[in-house]
Order: sequence, then C-alpha cells, then structure tokens
Amino acid sequence: MDVSKIKDPSLLKGMGKEELESLSIDIRKFLIEKLSATGGHIGPNLGVVELTLALHKHFDSPKDKFLWDVGHQSYVHKILTGRGDQFDTLRQFKGLCGFPKMIESKHDVWETGHSSTSLSAAMGMAIARDIKGDSNYVVPIIGDGALTGGMALEALNHIGHEKKDITVILNDNEMSIAPNVGALHSVLGRLRTAGKYNWVKDELEYLLKKIPAVGGKLASTAERVKDSLKYLLVSGVFFEELGFTYLGPVDGHNFDELEENIQYAKKTKGPVLLHVITKKGKGFDPAETDTVGTWHGTGPYKIDTGDLIKSTTTAPGWSALVSETVRRLAREDERIVAVTPAMPVGSKLEGFASEFPDRMFDVGIAEQHATTMSAGLATQNMKPFLAIYSTFLQRAYDQVVHDICRQKLNVFIGVDRAGIVGADGETHQGVFDIAFLRHLPNMVVMMPKDENEGQHMVKTAIAYEDGPIAMRFPRGNGLGVAMDKELKQIPIGSWEVIREGSDAVILTFGTTITLALSAAEKLVSKGVSVRVVNARFIKPLDEAMLKDLFAEGLPVLTIEEAVLQGGFGSAVIEFAHDSEMGHIRIERMGIPDQFIEHGSVDKLLDEINLTDDRAVEIIQAIAPIKQQRA
Amino acid sequence: MDVSKIKDPSLLKGMGKEELESLSIDIRKFLIEKLSATGGHIGPNLGVVELTLALHKHFDSPKDKFLWDVGHQSYVHKILTGRGDQFDTLRQFKGLCGFPKMIESKHDVWETGHSSTSLSAAMGMAIARDIKGDSNYVVPIIGDGALTGGMALEALNHIGHEKKDITVILNDNEMSIAPNVGALHSVLGRLRTAGKYNWVKDELEYLLKKIPAVGGKLASTAERVKDSLKYLLVSGVFFEELGFTYLGPVDGHNFDELEENIQYAKKTKGPVLLHVITKKGKGFDPAETDTVGTWHGTGPYKIDTGDLIKSTTTAPGWSALVSETVRRLAREDERIVAVTPAMPVGSKLEGFASEFPDRMFDVGIAEQHATTMSAGLATQNMKPFLAIYSTFLQRAYDQVVHDICRQKLNVFIGVDRAGIVGADGETHQGVFDIAFLRHLPNMVVMMPKDENEGQHMVKTAIAYEDGPIAMRFPRGNGLGVAMDKELKQIPIGSWEVIREGSDAVILTFGTTITLALSAAEKLVSKGVSVRVVNARFIKPLDEAMLKDLFAEGLPVLTIEEAVLQGGFGSAVIEFAHDSEMGHIRIERMGIPDQFIEHGSVDKLLDEINLTDDRAVEIIQAIAPIKQQRA
Repeated sequence: MDVSKIKDPSLLKGMGKEELESLSIDIRKFLIEKLSATGGHIGPNLGVVELTLALHKHFDSPKDKFLWDVGHQSYVHKILTGRGDQFDTLRQFKGLCGFPKMIESKHDVWETGHSSTSLSAAMGMAIARDIKGDSNYVVPIIGDGALTGGMALEALNHIGHEKKDITVILNDNEMSIAPNVGALHSVLGRLRTAGKYNWVKDELEYLLKKIPAVGGKLASTAERVKDSLKYLLVSGVFFEELGFTYLGPVDGHNFDELEENIQYAKKTKGPVLLHVITKKGKGFDPAETDTVGTWHGTGPYKIDTGDLIKSTTTAPGWSALVSETVRRLAREDERIVAVTPAMPVGSKLEGFASEFPDRMFDVGIAEQHATTMSAGLATQNMKPFLAIYSTFLQRAYDQVVHDICRQKLNVFIGVDRAGIVGADGETHQGVFDIAFLRHLPNMVVMMPKDENEGQHMVKTAIAYEDGPIAMRFPRGNGLGVAMDKELKQIPIGSWEVIREGSDAVILTFGTTITLALSAAEKLVSKGVSVRVVNARFIKPLDEAMLKDLFAEGLPVLTIEEAVLQGGFGSAVIEFAHDSEMGHIRIERMGIPDQFIEHGSVDKLLDEINLTDDRAVEIIQAIAPIKQQRA
Repeated sequence: MDVSKIKDPSLLKGMGKEELESLSIDIRKFLIEKLSATGGHIGPNLGVVELTLALHKHFDSPKDKFLWDVGHQSYVHKILTGRGDQFDTLRQFKGLCGFPKMIESKHDVWETGHSSTSLSAAMGMAIARDIKGDSNYVVPIIGDGALTGGMALEALNHIGHEKKDITVILNDNEMSIAPNVGALHSVLGRLRTAGKYNWVKDELEYLLKKIPAVGGKLASTAERVKDSLKYLLVSGVFFEELGFTYLGPVDGHNFDELEENIQYAKKTKGPVLLHVITKKGKGFDPAETDTVGTWHGTGPYKIDTGDLIKSTTTAPGWSALVSETVRRLAREDERIVAVTPAMPVGSKLEGFASEFPDRMFDVGIAEQHATTMSAGLATQNMKPFLAIYSTFLQRAYDQVVHDICRQKLNVFIGVDRAGIVGADGETHQGVFDIAFLRHLPNMVVMMPKDENEGQHMVKTAIAYEDGPIAMRFPRGNGLGVAMDKELKQIPIGSWEVIREGSDAVILTFGTTITLALSAAEKLVSKGVSVRVVNARFIKPLDEAMLKDLFAEGLPVLTIEEAVLQGGFGSAVIEFAHDSEMGHIRIERMGIPDQFIEHGSVDKLLDEINLTDDRAVEIIQAIAPIKQQRA
C-alpha cells in the first residue's frame, strides 16, 4: 500500500491481522526510506508501528484523545491521520513538525516535546469530559523513560486517587534515549522478565493445591508460595497500589495480544495501565541493534549500509568540547562530578563516564532531582558539573533559584543547546535561559565566542568558588579555531574588544559574534566604522567597559540569540539608565516575543531578521546620531 | 529544664526514656508559650518533639547530616542546637529564621522552605561522602505531603537504584497543610491502619499452618492467605520495590519504638525508610484537634483559650476576594474549575469547594501536575483557575512555558502572595514572577490597585479567551475600598491615570500605588507635581499611553515590588528604546539583586529602600531635567 495516500484511520477498522501486518511492513519501509533523506526520530517510531495501528483501529480519534508523551514517536500516527504525503518536508521550515502539532491535524489534541506531560494533560481532559458528561476515552502513550519524570509520578498518584477513566499505554522499550536508571526501571525490568501475570497466577494456584499433600515439608512450600505470590503481586502491584488496573505485559509487535488487551482495557472502569513491550528500531537492523542511542534521532543515513551521512565539519562539537575539558580537569581535581538527566550521549559524557565511572551520575529524566542533587554535592565542597540542555533546564528553574542560587552553591551548569536548535522546533529552542537566569541573585552567566574561549570558560567555571556559574553553548560545532594547549581563567565579568571601530558599537556574544563581524565588514564600504565587543559575560556585565563606552557617546547595538524581553540587551539598557546614561542610543536585536518554529537554524534566523544585513541597517540608522551629538 | 539554655545536643546522649519524656514536656511548654507571642509553625513542631530528640540522641550532628524537608518543623532542632534563647525574635527582622539557615548554626547543613528537596540533596551529600571515603549518616526528614512532590519521587527512584546509604525518616502525620490527596497517600493510610509489619507476618504464618487442616475449604482459605500476604507485601512493598529497606510504622511519640528503630536503621546497609507516625499539634489541644490546618502556621494566640489574635482589618483578604469572585462567576459558567496544589485553605477555596465539589481539584503538593492539568482542561474548552502562590509557581515554570503559553491555552493563573511576604522570608518571597512570566509569548500579566479593581480583574481573566492570563495579588488584605456590585471587564493592556501631575510621572501597580500616591502628596509641598499611573497591565504595556507620555518628555519613575532585572521597569525602558525614546529619563525602583530575608513587610521595604521617601528623592533629582528640556 502507498501509505502516503492514507487519509484517515478509518481504513483500519475492518482490517484483520494479516492486513495490519502487511500495512506495518509498508509503514516501516516508508519511514526507513523517508527518514534516510530528512533524518528524524527513526528508532522510537519503528518501535510503535503495531501499537499505533492497534490503537487507531480500536479507539476513535479525535473523539478519543491520544496524547503522545514527548511526541517524537508520533510519525506513524501522522501517517494514519493523512500526513504521509508531507514526510519529505519533515522537520524542515514550514514542513511537517517532528512532534504533535494542533494546527496540522484535528487528531493532534496535545502538543509535546518535553517529556512526562501527557498524564497530567490526560487528567485535565478526563475531568473536562466528566463535567461535560461526554464519554470519550483519554489515552496517553508514555515511555518508560518519561515515567521517571517527577510530574508523571505526580500525575499517576492523582489519577489513581481520583479513579478517573484514563487508559495509560506504557510503551516500555528497554532503552529510551539512554539506558534508563532508577528503581522504577528495575520494577519494569522485572515485569519484562516475569512473563505474563496470568501465568504466575496459574502457578500459584497449582502450588496452593499441592500444600495439603506435602505434610512435613510445609514450611519450605510456604516459602515457595510466598515467592510465587510475591512475583504475582510485584508484577502489577506498583501500579495497582497507585489505584490502576494493571494489564500486561503484552508484546507490542503482536496484533493478537495488543488487540485483545486494548479491547479489555476499553471495558475496564477506572484508570488502566496497559504495559506494552516494544523494541526501538524494530525492522531496521542498524536501529534495532543500537545499544547507545545513535538511532534514537539521526540525520540522513544510507539505507543499505546504515551509515550516517556525517557533516563535513572538523571543528569539535560543543558538547564534546565542554565535557572533555571537564574530564581533563577532573584528572587533577577529585571534587569534580558530572550529573546528567538522561543525556549522557547528547552531552558527550561517555568519555568522562568511562574514565570516572564513580563520579558520573545519569539520574534519568529527572531535571529537578539532577539540579538539587548537584546543590547537595556542592554543600559538601564537591564541584558538580550539571550538563543540561537549555530547554530542559526550564524544568529545574525553582531548583536553580531555591536550592542553588539562594544557598550560593558552587555548581557549574553547562547550558547546552542554547539558542536556536533548528529541526526540533518550538519545544526545544534554548532561547529563554538568559531571561530566566539573569534575574537570579548570585548567578554568573557566560557564553564563549569560540571553542578556544570555550575551553577556558570551562576552566574558569571549575575554578570559580563564589556561587553558581552557568556557561551557555550552542548546538552543533565550533568554528575550527586554533586551540591553546594551556587552559586559563577568564576574569569574571570581563569583556573584550575584538574589532576596533569609532562610529558605533556592537555588543554581542557566542554564535552572533560571527554575524556582528560580518556586519562590521559590510559597513566598511559604507564608511561606517563599527567596534565589536565580545560581551562574553551576560551577568555580571563589564560595567567598567560599558561606562567608558557610554562616555564616548557611541550608539550601541546589542545582538543575542535569545528572547529580547529581559535579555542581555535589557541588561545593557537597564545599566545605562541606572548610570544616568539612558540618553545613549541603544538598539537591540534578538528573538521577538513569539515561539520559534522548526527549520534550519539559518532559515529561522532569517525569518526573525537576526541577520548581518539587519545589523547593517540598524547601524546605518543609528550611527549618524552619534555624529550629530559629538 | 530551661530549654532556652541548651547549648548543643550532647546532653541527650546519656538520657533515659524518662528524662527524654520530661524534656519533651518542657520543650512543648516552651514552644506553646513562645509561639503564642511570635506566631509560627506550631502544629508541625509539636508533632516532631520526640522524633527530633531521638534523632539527635542517636545520630551525631553535624557530622551526620539532618535535612529538614520544607523546614518549618525545625524549631525543636533549633532548640537542641543552642538557639532556644532566640525564640523571642522568631521570624522577625534579623531574628531567628523559621526555616533551617546555615549562617545560624553548623547544624543546619541544608536550607529549605519549598517542599520535596531533601531527598535529592541527601543523595548529593551521600555521593560526596562516598567519594571522599567518609562514614557519616545522611538523614532527610520528609513529611508524607512532601513525598507527593515530583522531585521527591525522582529522588526516591534514583536513591533506590544507586543503593546509597541514606536514612530517610518519613514523618507521616495524617494531615500536612491540607488533607493529602493522591494514591500514594492511601498507601500510607493503609500502612497506618495495618499495624506493624511483623504482626501481619505472624498472622500469615498462623494461616499457613492451618491450611492442611481445612480440607475442602482450601480455596477460600487460599483467598485468605492471599489477602494476608497482600497485606504483608503491600505494607512495605511500595518502598521496597524502589530499593529501600522499609522499617515501621512506628509511633513517633514513643521513645522505645523510636530509639529501637533508629538504632536498627543505623545498622542497615543501603537506603532505609523509617516510617514514623506523628500527630501534628501533639500536646496542645487546639492544635491537636485541628482538622482544617488553622494551626499549621499561625500568628500570635492566647494559650488558655486557643484563640488566635486576629488582625483588626475589616478589608477582605486578597485570597478570599479572588477565590470568592471566581466562585461567583462559576455559578454562571460551568466551564470554570479550580485547581490548587495543596493550598485550599491558604487560597481560601473552601467556599468554592463546598459549592462545587466536582469542579475543585486539590492535587497535593504537585505544582507541575497542577499546571499541566490546567492546560489539559483548557484544551477541552474548560476555564481552569489555577490558584498558586508566586513562589510555588516557580516550580512549574517549564509547564507554564511549554504547556500553557506555547499552546496558547486559556488558563487563569491566580498568582497569590506576590511581592514581599514577610515572616516566611527568603524562600517564600514572591518577587521573581514578573521576571519569569514577562518574557513568555502569549502571556498576559496584571495586578490590581485595590480589591475593587481586583474583582473586575477576575472577571476580566475569566472572560479572556486569547491565551493564558496571570493576575498577581499580594499576601494579606485589601485597602477597604467600596466594592462595585456589578463585575466588569478591564480592557487588556489599559492603564489609568489616578493622579494628575505635570512635572514627572510614576508608573506603578498593585501594593506600591499607595507608596506612589504618598510620595506625590509629599512632593506637593516641594512644588513638584507628580502624575501617578496605575500600570495594572505589566504585559502587555499600555503602549499608547506610554507613547503620549514619552512625547511629553516627562521624566519617569517606575516602582515595583519585584526584582528589577527583567522586571516591569525594564519593560518600560525596553519600549522606550524600541520606540526611539531612549533619551527619556527613566528611573526604576524595585527589589535589588539579592535574596530578601524574613521580617515584617514594612521593615523589609525600608531595608531595600522601597519607600515613599526614596521615591520623593528620586523625583526631586529627575524632575528638573524635564524643565531644562521643555
């Protein structure tokens, strides 16, 4: 079947097992082929083909509500709901989103990207349904990794207590992004190996029947009964204790098991948890045999060999640069410990982990715990390096405020994927961190201009002993600059002039320095001489340099790849007004007051006018002002 | 014993049961007397007298680390560590803090205020200990209410997995601030009624022994065995499944039980959870019999009658005003639902709950879940009112960004206790919300000048159908103004001039309007005529009014009871620069870049110079500038 022609899930209703299996093959083939060109979350989607078909056959979307937790496993759902013909544009600007998106389809009733939100949203939808007297099903589909996130546990607790009719599908693949950690995962592991609930129950009854016959051997038999019972109870007890009817585990690639259990779940009152075992990457060898997470989400690849089509850059990746520099420093300082919330691969901490296995902690999807645990480490004079993506640090805002900043603890926060991240889109852009970190007392926030300065900033952060320090760095690779052998500290709050100029000044940092230098170069031919400052400390500002600069009276343009409101540019104008220099002409470039969709970084920067040409325009408009006043 | 003379916990080491019981009586008497004058968290502290004595007798603080979750139950710990002589200054400016505070004592190794942080911090401390090769105990003391917080569950999961030596004390009182909700709480409830673990085990063995004798009645006996076993396994299985050794439940007011179990816990390897049942308010009748939470934390009271000494204001309390107006509107709009994370009393939602029991959801201490559940409700065209304190909304920042603002959902966030809150101090000041909400796309943020405008803002928020809307309001009572009968909508983004003036303009909102009017009045005699604007919308700004105002060229002073960096004043100067009016003289008053300690609100405002006199000074300094330019 040409799956790109599917209009809606109604075609599934009459399908028998063989047709479903045939369709599964077609969908897998389609996904493997399409994603080889666009890249995307291949592993998770190949794992849920049968599950998604079975769900759409037996539930009635959009009346029944599917909530795809995290959401990167919604490709099959997108195919079944009439979007197969858009897969050539997947994750591209104005193309199909890699996550559920309401504007794409009425079947997308809840948008995701960050993990562990689906159960809370499902509870809201179930409450609404019951108040209105409607009778639809609410079906969150959540992975075992996302289940360790605190808010998912909060929601399980509340759903169980309220006994609402919610059908939770637990999509348990042995591996989410990284091998899951945590005791909850071992409960799931035991379920996986325990076989079916009913099997254990049968064994129990068999044993109990034998008891009267054994006579003198009662005690040891009683022990066996206890063990069997424990197995029986343990297998579902965790969720049953929380008030759920537990069904499963079922083989998520077997339509007989899936359909039978889904139908049973539909008949069951109150909250149900259907435990489905799936295999990530199912049906595509390289992805199916992947043990480290390479095939969780990829760029384009060659189908026949399974080789990823690598980018041609030779400059070091930012995550690797930072993590490897921390590792280098950890050789001399036993206090250094690395903490990651489920991103050891993304944060390139594999080397650190293999060299310092006792000083590396992957806490699973648990950003809050990771952050406060880092604070706890710091109280004991350890030097935690908290490796976290900008967008995920949002979930630990209170922990940064209340536990780290308030207690002024020496935690080094490595804010990865800061700025526009591209194809992952709205939910993953790292554009708020300056605005949510800058107003916190005791916090230092910095961003390097290139990877050489980056390694020195890591050194600076580790050496800093006066409270928390956050280093932002972008997704992707450095510039390929020469690297100093020796690491050195950068004075806190110090900026540097990286290009001289006398008509206007650009204050910027990180990725947008390239943009600023390019604008300055273009302005030469227009007779405007622009100074470019590497404002590498966003907090504290280099107040001495700013005062001198304001005294010169030059017009200023600030540029940042972050939200404008409350951002770096605001800090500069705040300081100008506080030092009675508000009359200085200061313009700001940055991310406007809107969420930024998916697409290539360059395309998105173009779209929001965060370009060298726009900088040229602005400078041309403001530079004369200085001349009039001078 | 005069407990105010206790220097350190060493006096406990040789004490027998009778001495401990006698000391408990003295400490209770001391607390009841001292808090009758100062107010404070009487209920929680009376509940942990014996527990705290037993812990300090058998552990060796500060070598062993006590982490008091939430921390308002640390008064007995403060008495035992030499701070009994400071209780007359409790929660007062420069006096004893109501929460653990490192600068007060070496025995306070972790500061708290917000709930559910102790387990994560304990994990950090345990990791540090093991890396250093030290051998101290790490002892978080956490209530059953705090255990429903997501990050506590994240931490339990991780601790269980890593098998670290941590001694968790679960302080289980039937009621934390409000009756706990959630399935986890019913597990605890079952434990409470189940009696001791060993008792169930005995019953099991008795039943098993009877099996051979019953013959034909095997099946039903087997059922009984199953039930007994289920009891056995259920009682500890929840925590044991997570990898903990479960001890208890023990009577938290019985030294024999407490001491025996603490000693056993100390000998046990790996993570231990000691389940202690305590009674809030123990030993003080009004507090012990309290069922609604009045005696959780109080102001001063009369010891003999148990009457609270009420404030004399007759103006409505802010929480009541908002919740009662929502209730009034809920009579006409079935879509209105109230959600609170464990604060039905603090948020004065009792009336709403009794009138609309099916539309009121207390989700327990679970701010993240409360917020995303509200988003889920809004997707179904419901109108959720999320009642949450400013300081606790910090914990749901990502949920506000990712789930509410990004999906542009119609959630009404009632941001209670916004601004300086006083006696609770650093951890509870509601001063960051403007800075962390203002930069979010689609968000409206407003604050009323008085309770009459407040009720109209509630109407406005409920009627608003274009995304999320947050209404800030302060702790305490309104001004006692006349209330309109009819509710009306306030145009979004509209400010109002509430005092005319021609030399300078003050832009402010909420509580600081009083300050501004007072400053304006004082300036009359100095010949300065000040306009005062009620800038009730913090986002969006009233750009039309601002443009006119900038066109007049008047100097501007912004005043806010919130952090200056990225705050309302910043929004005003951002707009000035964006509209080429950066030359306008704009000064900002607000909370400086520091955490604000505890004390009376007036005292604290004085301390940070957020006063009418300071406003007078600033206006006098800037008003002439306009005259020069005019």
